[in-house]
Amino acid sequence: MTVRVAVAGASGYAGGELLRLLLGHPEVEVGALTAGGNAGTTLGQHQPHLVPLADRVLADTTVDALAGHEVVFLALPHGHSAEIAAALGDDVLVVDCGADHRLTDPAAWRRWYGGEHAGSWPYGLPELPGAREKLRGARRIAVPGCYPTVVSLALAPALAHGLVEPNAVVVAVSGTSGAGRNLKPHLLGSEVMGSASAYGVGGTHRHTPEIVQNLSVVAGRPVSVSFTPVLAPMPRGILATCTAPLAADPGDVRAAYATCYDGEPFVHLLPEGRWPTTGATLGGNAVHLQVTVDPDAGRLVAVAAVDNLTKGTAGGAVQCMNLALGLPETTGLSTLGVAP
Amino acid sequence: MTVRVAVAGASGYAGGELLRLLLGHPEVEVGALTAGGNAGTTLGQHQPHLVPLADRVLADTTVDALAGHEVVFLALPHGHSAEIAAALGDDVLVVDCGADHRLTDPAAWRRWYGGEHAGSWPYGLPELPGAREKLRGARRIAVPGCYPTVVSLALAPALAHGLVEPNAVVVAVSGTSGAGRNLKPHLLGSEVMGSASAYGVGGTHRHTPEIVQNLSVVAGRPVSVSFTPVLAPMPRGILATCTAPLAADPGDVRAAYATCYDGEPFVHLLPEGRWPTTGATLGGNAVHLQVTVDPDAGRLVAVAAVDNLTKGTAGGAVQCMNLALGLPETTGLSTLGVAP
Amino acid sequence: MTVRVAVAGASGYAGGELLRLLLGHPEVEVGALTAGGNAGTTLGQHQPHLVPLADRVLADTTVDALAGHEVVFLALPHGHSAEIAAALGDDVLVVDCGADHRLTDPAAWRRWYGGEHAGSWPYGLPELPGAREKLRGARRIAVPGCYPTVVSLALAPALAHGLVEPNAVVVAVSGTSGAGRNLKPHLLGSEVMGSASAYGVGGTHRHTPEIVQNLSVVAGRPVSVSFTPVLAPMPRGILATCTAPLAADPGDVRAAYATCYDGEPFVHLLPEGRWPTTGATLGGNAVHLQVTVDPDAGRLVAVAAVDNLTKGTAGGAVQCMNLALGLPETTGLSTLGVAP
Amino acid sequence: MTVRVAVAGASGYAGGELLRLLLGHPEVEVGALTAGGNAGTTLGQHQPHLVPLADRVLADTTVDALAGHEVVFLALPHGHSAEIAAALGDDVLVVDCGADHRLTDPAAWRRWYGGEHAGSWPYGLPELPGAREKLRGARRIAVPGCYPTVVSLALAPALAHGLVEPNAVVVAVSGTSGAGRNLKPHLLGSEVMGSASAYGVGGTHRHTPEIVQNLSVVAGRPVSVSFTPVLAPMPRGILATCTAPLAADPGDVRAAYATCYDGEPFVHLLPEGRWPTTGATLGGNAVHLQVTVDPDAGRLVAVAAVDNLTKGTAGGAVQCMNLALGLPETTGLSTLGVAP
Repeated sequence: MTVRVAVAGASGYAGGELLRLLLGHPEVEVGALTAGGNAGTTLGQHQPHLVPLADRVLADTTVDALAGHEVVFLALPHGHSAEIAAALGDDVLVVDCGADHRLTDPAAWRRWYGGEHAGSWPYGLPELPGAREKLRGARRIAVPGCYPTVVSLALAPALAHGLVEPNAVVVAVSGTSGAGRNLKPHLLGSEVMGSASAYGVGGTHRHTPEIVQNLSVVAGRPVSVSFTPVLAPMPRGILATCTAPLAADPGDVRAAYATCYDGEPFVHLLPEGRWPTTGATLGGNAVHLQVTVDPDAGRLVAVAAVDNLTKGTAGGAVQCMNLALGLPETTGLSTLGVAP
Repeated sequence: MTVRVAVAGASGYAGGELLRLLLGHPEVEVGALTAGGNAGTTLGQHQPHLVPLADRVLADTTVDALAGHEVVFLALPHGHSAEIAAALGDDVLVVDCGADHRLTDPAAWRRWYGGEHAGSWPYGLPELPGAREKLRGARRIAVPGCYPTVVSLALAPALAHGLVEPNAVVVAVSGTSGAGRNLKPHLLGSEVMGSASAYGVGGTHRHTPEIVQNLSVVAGRPVSVSFTPVLAPMPRGILATCTAPLAADPGDVRAAYATCYDGEPFVHLLPEGRWPTTGATLGGNAVHLQVTVDPDAGRLVAVAAVDNLTKGTAGGAVQCMNLALGLPETTGLSTLGVAP
Repeated sequence: MTVRVAVAGASGYAGGELLRLLLGHPEVEVGALTAGGNAGTTLGQHQPHLVPLADRVLADTTVDALAGHEVVFLALPHGHSAEIAAALGDDVLVVDCGADHRLTDPAAWRRWYGGEHAGSWPYGLPELPGAREKLRGARRIAVPGCYPTVVSLALAPALAHGLVEPNAVVVAVSGTSGAGRNLKPHLLGSEVMGSASAYGVGGTHRHTPEIVQNLSVVAGRPVSVSFTPVLAPMPRGILATCTAPLAADPGDVRAAYATCYDGEPFVHLLPEGRWPTTGATLGGNAVHLQVTVDPDAGRLVAVAAVDNLTKGTAGGAVQCMNLALGLPETTGLSTLGVAP
Repeated sequence: MTVRVAVAGASGYAGGELLRLLLGHPEVEVGALTAGGNAGTTLGQHQPHLVPLADRVLADTTVDALAGHEVVFLALPHGHSAEIAAALGDDVLVVDCGADHRLTDPAAWRRWYGGEHAGSWPYGLPELPGAREKLRGARRIAVPGCYPTVVSLALAPALAHGLVEPNAVVVAVSGTSGAGRNLKPHLLGSEVMGSASAYGVGGTHRHTPEIVQNLSVVAGRPVSVSFTPVLAPMPRGILATCTAPLAADPGDVRAAYATCYDGEPFVHLLPEGRWPTTGATLGGNAVHLQVTVDPDAGRLVAVAAVDNLTKGTAGGAVQCMNLALGLPETTGLSTLGVAP
């Protein structure tokens, strides 16, 4: 089986990571590569690490360029995917790494993004309860945001098993690639190196409603989330510290987590006493996770690490593609990180 | 006025930062420099940035070496300061950068450090309510830990004004120098760079009881704190994200913070809409602070940045020395950071 | 075909990188893992990025532990490999990532390492003229040092084609993992981040004679090399700037380089005008290379980037294993870097 | 004595560093702050580390705004300073941190920058032979480029004393702030962190002719220089490795260097066996220097470290101002670095 795959947004960070993974995927042939402002240049100018595709010229992101592939990955700014997907036809697998079809509530969409809601697609986080089945055979998939991926997996067992009260506090440290290749002063190396900074404080980051949505579904009731992202001096990686008040009788917290994730190929519950580092996840499709209880504060604390571009975006997208196409879920993916 | 000052622990990071500041202090003459295992070597081998003292040979940390100075700074592992202070005499100003005399509750000391409590000294965080007066003329001062410095200042106004409920969740990102010059594998550059990791999770970091103590004094009632420190790939800096549930009627949060800190030379409440970066505090004695409200989550969120070695340790120590000696509090100190 | 492979020195950086690559190699089964001081601990304690092997217990590095494998990789301090190899038998492929068998001149060995020379083995840099043939079917292979790998490839075409005079000046910037997981103060994250430093200045680095040896063989006459390594704040990567005086009539420099490397799967001569970055090589087995002429200074300047742990050590070792075993040279290896 | 000082280009990195130093200068009052595109905004938006000036509004860079000060620092793109200086009058001290008046040869100016040469001003590197005297009382000063500062000081003793042949090879590793606050993709944190890259290879960097000029004056004959700058993942700092062939009888190299720099307050020749790190110079006005001989390669190797923004730009500029105004040369400046 060889699947012909197109990538829209190939000159960005998510697009680059998709191509890195797709080049190593045994069932994939890389087809069209498209871009916005970078159309007409070679991929090598933007992604010098993708040597085999260095001379490929980027096409404009149009339906024509993307048509004729069995799978199309969209790594575009929000607001662009609905129209493209509609034109590509229902038999094409469209995997959207953007935000357009993640939120199920039109009101939430309007509040956080503005404009009309394009509808929701099956949500591409197979490890959430009930999610995997909806992805098998799907032809439209909404890949989660990087923060929602790691935060949802870190807290889902606690909420699903009633270990905690439905209000969480999350502080997640992220590398800079999460902001994409945007030419903004605060993303310059000179500003970033040696410095940590908070942003989107007070629940204003657009990933907040997606986290709330996921956790509320898992908990079966509304969950409130105080979410603060922190920019750290590293290119990749998210380390999410997730806490919530312990329920009256939480029982064996670790056992609950182990039950949830024992069969999951990409969620690695660390041995007791060891805590995740983002470095160990670099370039791999794994989530590293640990959980404990703080009896003095009466809170559960779960810490999870992920590569925001791999499991947090492109790796998760390839994992979903595998499920949708009926391939083994781990095809072309690895839990191995590049360390140190 | 020229004060003769000795520094014990001169080859470590706190000792080095003390010397950097003392060399720029107009009323100070640097006297004895002592060390443990590094005694007999020159300061330049350990602190190549302190050019004027490069050839100074480090003495053993003994009472004899430290005697004869008007001020003695101790930057030693815990458990060493009480005996030295007793031998130095009551007229010598002893400023302890270690933990020995920070906790007021002997039971807390025994739980977190073990062994007998050496008693508590005036607490060297002048910006806390009531603290400054106890430092004027003092001859024994316990300099706060780096995390307690920044977390206490970030939450004190909220607790003092009853803006929040007395249970806080704090996640603080720290540079590696907070761990000192310890030769541990996880502190190697190869491990640290490009990676974030949590440690002391679940309320097990020794700075937790000090934070609880400070906030409880400010609030006038017991405060519980869920504290998680995160190691980030930068040499210096702490960025603390501090949240607590809003009280029924919090009123004007920003005004409360402004009232607390308007006259403080080293606490900089940022203009609305701007958030702290640790980079802006590098090498300066300032705390950069911002606060907001998350109405969805019902929480106050305060974020504060500090240089853990400057305002977080050595700068705070010099500030206390100034108060104790009757010098203007800002002598030899600056809010200026070294950026980018 | 499945080859059973042992790795001695599995808890170090070279060992970890070997295992990362071997876990992705389709013809390899990972057998014994051994260590020195870390014997008895699990691999996961030292290499948390190698999730599939997390629970493996490290054996002592003994002949008994390593026997019974078709391939044994040695990632040990120098001086240990000759004895182990002798005991393993001639039919076992022994790939030595250490220095013991790289130098052909016993006098050079004694000068730079001291003690008796253990003899030289086929040199594992297939891209050097004549080297590949000696590796096919070999059962003993000396993997080059990381600096010699990149410097030799950067200058070999110039020397082989007589484009330059036989005296080179090389300054190579390296990440910290090249120094291994050694607990030395100058390798601490606090010291390394934000700082560059030279070491082994004046031709005193032990890789110098290996570079001289390689370049002299290629040039067919003695080549002198001024080599200065620089430690940079990054975990991986070497960027080598290599210059030499232009010969009287150098001709078409770029064409000479292209001729040498056009068929090489792991040497990537960049398009004109683009210069290598180590980031593009991270975790890949590629050397990125560019060359130009400085007419004012009368010198050729070649710049090459490599991941010191991959093509510079473990990837090169696996490439050699492939050659020795008669597998396609690129099996289990990729030119793809992990970027950004 | 209080000198009123204006800074043009206050929102850039050089301007920010000038202000950091001027705020600590006991004889200076900071007057007008001007900018180009950032005029109308507050300084705090761009330089959050300069707390005391946070609310200052930036004026347009015009002669009117700059007039009425005794000293005007220009931190502008090249081509702007001649006209401004002419309009300010001869009694105003104009210190130009840009390139306009560094090169003495109009032909060199035209080749490297294009357009008409604006003439040369006294060159602001007091430690070069004969330079200091020309700066005393000067009213126009051309501050050197960051690379020329450190390279010239590293090689001047060797060339002045005839220790080496007049052809040098220099590879200098630089932090990113040397490129200013330019919004270019390769300067993004995601690209820079974890990666080293060469640029301006083959003698094409505009600092090359300035280095050649300085070294040729010192040597008293033309000196050729092969210069390669390397971008390293750190915000500040230059580490220059400078080599040249040894003259027939170099004599005591170290003694020659000591003779040159023994009385210099800002040049620190390290004790034998210790090599510079840029980290030790962070934020200080010192050059750290070491020199040795490589007998095998027949070359002298000097390595020097500097903070590109301090001694490499703004600190050097303040040092020159002190000389020009008749103040002690070290006023408001320190050799102390901020480390770790």
